[in-house]
Amino acid sequence: MSTDLYDVIARRRDVRAEFSGETVDLGQLRRILQAAHEAPSVGHSQPWDFVLVFDEETRAEFADHVETERQTFAEQLEGERRETFEKIKVEGIRESGLGVVVTYDESRGGQHVLGRHAIADTGLYSTCLAIQNLWLAATAEGLGVGWVSFYREEFLADLVALPDGVRPVAWLCLGPVRHLQAVPDLVRHGWRKGRSLDEAIHLESWRG
Amino acid sequence: MSTDLYDVIARRRDVRAEFSGETVDLGQLRRILQAAHEAPSVGHSQPWDFVLVFDEETRAEFADHVETERQTFAEQLEGERRETFEKIKVEGIRESGLGVVVTYDESRGGQHVLGRHAIADTGLYSTCLAIQNLWLAATAEGLGVGWVSFYREEFLADLVALPDGVRPVAWLCLGPVRHLQAVPDLVRHGWRKGRSLDEAIHLESWRG
Repeated sequence: MSTDLYDVIARRRDVRAEFSGETVDLGQLRRILQAAHEAPSVGHSQPWDFVLVFDEETRAEFADHVETERQTFAEQLEGERRETFEKIKVEGIRESGLGVVVTYDESRGGQHVLGRHAIADTGLYSTCLAIQNLWLAATAEGLGVGWVSFYREEFLADLVALPDGVRPVAWLCLGPVRHLQAVPDLVRHGWRKGRSLDEAIHLESWRG
Repeated sequence: MSTDLYDVIARRRDVRAEFSGETVDLGQLRRILQAAHEAPSVGHSQPWDFVLVFDEETRAEFADHVETERQTFAEQLEGERRETFEKIKVEGIRESGLGVVVTYDESRGGQHVLGRHAIADTGLYSTCLAIQNLWLAATAEGLGVGWVSFYREEFLADLVALPDGVRPVAWLCLGPVRHLQAVPDLVRHGWRKGRSLDEAIHLESWRG
């Protein structure tokens, strides 16, 4: 399998249904977390942490909570949207064998974080850069990652005992997969088509 | 130059002083933006846009604003911190030849973005994933990227005429470099040492 950056970026998927149920190899996991940890961060604050949840009971508890939130969202939808959504699997928490809770600690780096005085969210942004490194490294290793965001932050913070001031940013399902889909799930299932790159590019100003 | 993912992750730097002043090749730029656009996004909302600022006058105006914010931050520091900070270059806006303003549009994807009902910030998170793809692709192409965050969001939004509801997430200096540093600037200049990966890993819960 190619580990060329562009190949990895193109192959990467947000995985729900394709986890094989095997457990991730610990050598691979170490390389993946190391890749995450090499991400850039504002003021070199490295504000991320990784809580590795292997425990089946904890994962089952989280999956139940996510199911409640899935229903909450479903109830906001009507007609075709509701029908389309109901066919979409939103998580693979039990099947993936491992949940990686990525967190953001706003106190990391002390009172004066270089580059954060004008924009408080830059610390959160750094944490997301680490997540993308993790995601690409897992893909390069032939594994799958699925970002679950149907949850309340307080619930997840309690579940893995985060201290005050540490915020959960993601629950990532991580594990071996049977294969990766060629087309993203939400496109395949008719939830939402992609936007062209040209629409996203503006020259000199938004009106350009 | 290797385009192996792990090599690219290790080589990537937050560039300030190493821009050569040459302009980025447009074929390379296209590949880099395409890589960003292939990032995952909540509900496949692809909420990012890229405003390409080549114009010298606009970049000079932004650089002047950033200098004011650099001073604001410097004035908050005392003693050794102040001295260490004053030696650190915080941007390469003029030298890089191109500023990429990456933005987040919260209205993209309509009222019901799949995966965002419980956590509003997930749209911002998606935008950051695109930034990391961009950063790695630029590194694979042998270019440098420097994220500038010494600015007020309102100033940058006005400068590139962002509509209401579209928020600037980053100004990225992008351009050819003479070389990339082996060690991150903030470590080299004694601002902040790195944290070990082991400190960032917790088993089953934060206390684990």
